[in-house]
Amino acid sequence: MSNLHNMQRLQQVLETEIPITRLMEIRVQDYDGQQLVLAAPLTPNINHKSTAFGGSLYSLAVLNGWGLLYLKMQELELNSHIVIFESSILYHLPVKTDFVSVCKITDERDWHRFQTVFRRKGRAKIRLLANILTNEGLAVSFQGTYVAHL
Amino acid sequence: MSNLHNMQRLQQVLETEIPITRLMEIRVQDYDGQQLVLAAPLTPNINHKSTAFGGSLYSLAVLNGWGLLYLKMQELELNSHIVIFESSILYHLPVKTDFVSVCKITDERDWHRFQTVFRRKGRAKIRLLANILTNEGLAVSFQGTYVAHL
Repeated sequence: MSNLHNMQRLQQVLETEIPITRLMEIRVQDYDGQQLVLAAPLTPNINHKSTAFGGSLYSLAVLNGWGLLYLKMQELELNSHIVIFESSILYHLPVKTDFVSVCKITDERDWHRFQTVFRRKGRAKIRLLANILTNEGLAVSFQGTYVAHL
Repeated sequence: MSNLHNMQRLQQVLETEIPITRLMEIRVQDYDGQQLVLAAPLTPNINHKSTAFGGSLYSLAVLNGWGLLYLKMQELELNSHIVIFESSILYHLPVKTDFVSVCKITDERDWHRFQTVFRRKGRAKIRLLANILTNEGLAVSFQGTYVAHL
């Protein structure tokens, strides 16, 4: 499957299986096989300060990690359920425009350990980082621990 | 203002100022002057596993702390902007039904320190805990640090 097909597939999964993502207007913007970029417009995600609602920022980031893991597992033909286990988020700057979240595998050794454990035990966890960026720079740092299981 | 009036006011603030909360169907369920309970139905917040989407659970919890702080500051007639600064969340159990989030001031000394700092400096931060409960028990633990500023 090409990266473009993967992007379309993920877009469809998000829209059909997590319907609130349609209302947040989340869009799979880019995937190059290593890095996944999700985007969301400000308007449907706005808050009382006319900036992006912290819950929408979190949702984009948690889906960014989830989506990357989903695509990587599909590529490896490893059928799995993927769930978020725990996470933390730090809001550096208010987000006053449309925004994107970027997530990639940063630690190859950790990624290989994750695959090895999953193949052996049918269950493994991995920590992923996602950053939300705007024109003003890094606005939000997210880290999440995801569990993949059979 | 009575607690009932406060609940209605918070419901209106959420719906008008954070429109995604209407789509998540978040409802201010109870407020007794110390503890705030927010509720959300499963259907608009469902995910690929037919349980509540982790981003929706986070959104309810972060608004639970925000809403409690909003109401307490209103009662004290302290005009302020309230924003989330950082938070962490732990998912103990999948949420298979409608759900509620509960937040209260647990540390009175901390609450008084927060007020004192805010009155003196026009800016203060406080850490609040919110728990998401279902019929099966505690499903999600959230802690967030909020900043109130003039």
